[in-house]
Amino acid sequence: MTAVRRPSGRPADAMRVVSLETGVNKYAEGACLARFGDTHVLCTATVESRVPSWMKGSGRGWVTAEYGMLPRSTDERTDREAARGRQGGRTLEIQRLIGRALRAVTRLEALGEVQIKLDCDVLQADGGTRTAAITGGYVALAQACRHLQAIKAITEWPLTDHVAAVSCGLYRGMAVTDLDYAEDSTADADANFVMTGAGALVEVQATAEGATFSETELMQLLALARKATGELVEAQRRAIG
Amino acid sequence: MTAVRRPSGRPADAMRVVSLETGVNKYAEGACLARFGDTHVLCTATVESRVPSWMKGSGRGWVTAEYGMLPRSTDERTDREAARGRQGGRTLEIQRLIGRALRAVTRLEALGEVQIKLDCDVLQADGGTRTAAITGGYVALAQACRHLQAIKAITEWPLTDHVAAVSCGLYRGMAVTDLDYAEDSTADADANFVMTGAGALVEVQATAEGATFSETELMQLLALARKATGELVEAQRRAIG
Amino acid sequence: MTAVRRPSGRPADAMRVVSLETGVNKYAEGACLARFGDTHVLCTATVESRVPSWMKGSGRGWVTAEYGMLPRSTDERTDREAARGRQGGRTLEIQRLIGRALRAVTRLEALGEVQIKLDCDVLQADGGTRTAAITGGYVALAQACRHLQAIKAITEWPLTDHVAAVSCGLYRGMAVTDLDYAEDSTADADANFVMTGAGALVEVQATAEGATFSETELMQLLALARKATGELVEAQRRAIG
Amino acid sequence: MTAVRRPSGRPADAMRVVSLETGVNKYAEGACLARFGDTHVLCTATVESRVPSWMKGSGRGWVTAEYGMLPRSTDERTDREAARGRQGGRTLEIQRLIGRALRAVTRLEALGEVQIKLDCDVLQADGGTRTAAITGGYVALAQACRHLQAIKAITEWPLTDHVAAVSCGLYRGMAVTDLDYAEDSTADADANFVMTGAGALVEVQATAEGATFSETELMQLLALARKATGELVEAQRRAIG
Amino acid sequence: MTAVRRPSGRPADAMRVVSLETGVNKYAEGACLARFGDTHVLCTATVESRVPSWMKGSGRGWVTAEYGMLPRSTDERTDREAARGRQGGRTLEIQRLIGRALRAVTRLEALGEVQIKLDCDVLQADGGTRTAAITGGYVALAQACRHLQAIKAITEWPLTDHVAAVSCGLYRGMAVTDLDYAEDSTADADANFVMTGAGALVEVQATAEGATFSETELMQLLALARKATGELVEAQRRAIG
Amino acid sequence: MTAVRRPSGRPADAMRVVSLETGVNKYAEGACLARFGDTHVLCTATVESRVPSWMKGSGRGWVTAEYGMLPRSTDERTDREAARGRQGGRTLEIQRLIGRALRAVTRLEALGEVQIKLDCDVLQADGGTRTAAITGGYVALAQACRHLQAIKAITEWPLTDHVAAVSCGLYRGMAVTDLDYAEDSTADADANFVMTGAGALVEVQATAEGATFSETELMQLLALARKATGELVEAQRRAIG
Repeated sequence: MTAVRRPSGRPADAMRVVSLETGVNKYAEGACLARFGDTHVLCTATVESRVPSWMKGSGRGWVTAEYGMLPRSTDERTDREAARGRQGGRTLEIQRLIGRALRAVTRLEALGEVQIKLDCDVLQADGGTRTAAITGGYVALAQACRHLQAIKAITEWPLTDHVAAVSCGLYRGMAVTDLDYAEDSTADADANFVMTGAGALVEVQATAEGATFSETELMQLLALARKATGELVEAQRRAIG
Repeated sequence: MTAVRRPSGRPADAMRVVSLETGVNKYAEGACLARFGDTHVLCTATVESRVPSWMKGSGRGWVTAEYGMLPRSTDERTDREAARGRQGGRTLEIQRLIGRALRAVTRLEALGEVQIKLDCDVLQADGGTRTAAITGGYVALAQACRHLQAIKAITEWPLTDHVAAVSCGLYRGMAVTDLDYAEDSTADADANFVMTGAGALVEVQATAEGATFSETELMQLLALARKATGELVEAQRRAIG
Repeated sequence: MTAVRRPSGRPADAMRVVSLETGVNKYAEGACLARFGDTHVLCTATVESRVPSWMKGSGRGWVTAEYGMLPRSTDERTDREAARGRQGGRTLEIQRLIGRALRAVTRLEALGEVQIKLDCDVLQADGGTRTAAITGGYVALAQACRHLQAIKAITEWPLTDHVAAVSCGLYRGMAVTDLDYAEDSTADADANFVMTGAGALVEVQATAEGATFSETELMQLLALARKATGELVEAQRRAIG
Repeated sequence: MTAVRRPSGRPADAMRVVSLETGVNKYAEGACLARFGDTHVLCTATVESRVPSWMKGSGRGWVTAEYGMLPRSTDERTDREAARGRQGGRTLEIQRLIGRALRAVTRLEALGEVQIKLDCDVLQADGGTRTAAITGGYVALAQACRHLQAIKAITEWPLTDHVAAVSCGLYRGMAVTDLDYAEDSTADADANFVMTGAGALVEVQATAEGATFSETELMQLLALARKATGELVEAQRRAIG
Repeated sequence: MTAVRRPSGRPADAMRVVSLETGVNKYAEGACLARFGDTHVLCTATVESRVPSWMKGSGRGWVTAEYGMLPRSTDERTDREAARGRQGGRTLEIQRLIGRALRAVTRLEALGEVQIKLDCDVLQADGGTRTAAITGGYVALAQACRHLQAIKAITEWPLTDHVAAVSCGLYRGMAVTDLDYAEDSTADADANFVMTGAGALVEVQATAEGATFSETELMQLLALARKATGELVEAQRRAIG
Repeated sequence: MTAVRRPSGRPADAMRVVSLETGVNKYAEGACLARFGDTHVLCTATVESRVPSWMKGSGRGWVTAEYGMLPRSTDERTDREAARGRQGGRTLEIQRLIGRALRAVTRLEALGEVQIKLDCDVLQADGGTRTAAITGGYVALAQACRHLQAIKAITEWPLTDHVAAVSCGLYRGMAVTDLDYAEDSTADADANFVMTGAGALVEVQATAEGATFSETELMQLLALARKATGELVEAQRRAIG
């Protein structure tokens, strides 16, 4: 297995260069430009006083996400979803995932009746956009919570832990961390792991398109993910300050 | 843990009564009414000579799926997606999952340039509709392949194995098999496993809404799923005959 | 005229085997699987406390219907309306007809401000789906009214009579009852009759695509419809019990 | 019954003032502004060389119709369907009816592979817009056929007869001709009759919203319609010249 | 420049025959059929008691416009926007322009919380539909204001001046007034001017598709527009009476 | 007039700090991040071999544009157009303008049958997004033309001149250059000027919402625009290199 060389030349357990840049939007209550190598996702958090209608009067808040890709974030231009008149299945699936991931570490009752909306827009895509969105989205969410604290809209800190995500996969039979597009498009299996700062699992989505994988392989991927999310949580801490 | 009693009274590792009834549609090339207890999903397979445009000339076929729920398949009536004018994110996510699961055991090059479309329509829902759809969809798919064989449109058997799916979860801290709605709506974590007849993994989707789970718990759920999908594959064999 | 033989071999005035099966849905306030031969329509009735906005405060209720076809209910697969993003003209026309037919025998003021929604979903189509939907929809509606009576939401019985429907037509010049698809697709004229238990007319829709018909022929079709709806009303009585 | 007075003061068997004005559009191959009293419908016929895809290569033509209402054609402004993003059920139902009516008198094989599209736009509505549309649409269609003849695109006259339509109904128990809005909105039953110049029936749509009607009453309405469509056919002859 | 002859033979500074006909709709609070030569636009004004939600409680009113074209208002039939399911960019752009133009001469605070909706529907198009819509729309708006005055819904006259519009352009290098379609489709530059009765500018939209124009040319077009809108304002005065 | 102070403190004829940054997208054939102060628009150019169907076989190319705003590019979050299912009128109007502006300096016949699509996505909005989009879009377009030249797809340089745009307006009666949001939202009139490097006019869109302006004021705005677009063209030259 030592003979397999990743297209990027990275070791099997090495993430791409990660950067979580804040201060990138003058309006939003929270904002983070998450870069995993050439994958760039701009995440903003908006605090809204209006919760979904089915939550009204519950005294609890909500955290939700929307996801989009700029048309030329991809190698071949992708049609604009606004022009096509509907969001595709992949978009809806990803934004549901981001929302679940962030809610897993949020005590909604501590927010009061407030909704925090995360917009995750991909400026450039090179694999792993959803995991970058979750990781950067957490930073924007934390900033928005700080804002709520600063204006005394909340009294308790609503986040119970960090949450970060990484995609690992089987590339030519080898378990590798943080797939880029060159790896992702030829991988036998691809698994997204969402984990907390404490190392608990929030979500596992392991998929083998046209292939299968074993329990042992799943465990290998999980071990890689644990190491990588640990590093991402460190980067989040530095970004939030 | 022995103190936890499931709402249905089932043992932790017991599926609901499963029935895979064939001969339920006079037109389709394959058809199966899959029942997991009170969850009833009508699966039909349609053979079309037209493949998606990006496959034309490739000499390979395609397998895809659509999913829908009748409005009163649920306890509270759900608005008809045709009337709302769009399929929701959950629908799109499920039909993508069904398609991937079935393609994982299909050698597309053995189909020739033919598309097989699985329609999975939920007549009654009581949890686990997507796993019933995959399990029954496989039966309809196998019948459609038989049909292609009978009319000599294919020369090799295109399916490499069975594929079946089950949802397991943590109910009051206990790992249990085949969640029904009463369990699903209060479960701490919910995991869908798609597995082949040989026990290989095709897809794992483990989710904790507002909670987390450990690696050990994931392994427990996987063990339950392995046993359950083994039983489902047996039921598929009997149905296909 | 004695020389004309129907594809099914039925006498001119004979309906297909009719079955109105109840107890087919565990959630709905009323449910009936109506079978006219190979035409199978699942009808459910849902009681909603919310009436259309233009009726609010009127003290009266409303009865409405939605209609859909499963994609492979037809010989050739029909695209899913939810996927196409809109209900076609035929669908809208049929569901308006079903609603009008059922309201014709309902005293809306006796319902209170309650809406009863009939969902009529075609599982298998072999001609006459709209007439099966009306006939089975009435059974589901009656069950929903019983439910309202049982929970003491209404004090008077709101239905003034039965309502049932049948399609008759001119097949090779001969007036025949209950057209199946083989007849319908080649008929010179096709007429849907909606009638009450007392034999009064609720709706007549007689159409000649690419042909015409005479007043005498219309009367012949009406006579056949009177006999057939009489039988359907009997079947309804047995189903409701 | 002699005591019933119509809101307009018209005798039971009298139509409103009818006018079928031609020469009202400088571009269309046929055009007629049909006025039934205060109901004004602008009908244009467009000849297109492109037939629907399912007719290609058949050597036959097609006649179809579209229907619309200007927002302030009605007493209360109606929302623009283009702004709402979809045509309502009533619109689709009416334009299907107009198309069927006109095709009933057209030998499609005599048209060659040509489509004639009738646009029927209601400038002002006072009841009976669909019957005015059919009656005026026939005039526009006949002009378009003349145009095809003039340019020698066809060799045989493709229309087999006139077709005209009128709405009759039961107003306070009395059968009356050509309902205007004041009558239509309170009528017990409303029937649209489409008839040929020879008096044959093309379509009967008789509806009782919240009521029923008898066979005898249907016959009375039919007799009135026969007289009225006879007059309309005369008006068509004068318009076409 | 004297050698250039306009297709219509008109002098450079001559408008087409203009007619602003009132009394063309029995329901609307204001109505005007504006004809600029063969361009015919039916404008109706509707008074609604409901203002847009963002204006509620402001004590001010609103004036807005919708624009549409009948399918055969054009030489080649244009698809119906209601059938396509969305209004095109050109339509939206034009109706925004009409609304802004009319609001420029309306004191919204004098209307009270009332919305006036102008519907401008093109019956026949031969260039300049938007300028005819603004010019005729003003007449309908003024009538609607008279109506509000008559029913004592307003106490002050809300219109501060007339507003009218004309399209001028560079045709074969010559500045000409009121482009018809033959000129518009080959013009080097096309400018729409919206002006008040006092000669003030409300809107200038000068466009050169595939070309450019100079400041001097812009001034020439403006001078032509000033003369033409003066004539249009006179026609408005006569129409309003 | 000297007493009027702009919110930003800028002199009347001073633009905000302008930056046209290239190298901001690794996939696109051309890319420029245009910054006019706090207004940031990411412009990418995509070369496609497919032209619109109405151009096929013409031997000419096409240049078109799409425009979008990230939801939190604005002070209050704006709903995502992809989620709403349609692009608004403002979006369509702006993207039509950008396309016209760029085509005005492109010889389409020199492109061959190639389409260049400009995507202009607003990352942060503070007034003047459409003018920044045109100015930055030109840079991306020029890079895409260089790319076509480099791969020898074209032999002649297809751009005839630069094109740039600026918004000027009347702020408290004073003509000022490059309105930011604080000025734009309270300006009496707002005019967008699109000009070439040679100073010719491509498009003038001058609008007075709820007010009017004089010919003299229009000339003042035009003089300011001439100076500003001259500076922008210089910045383009430096960016293109």
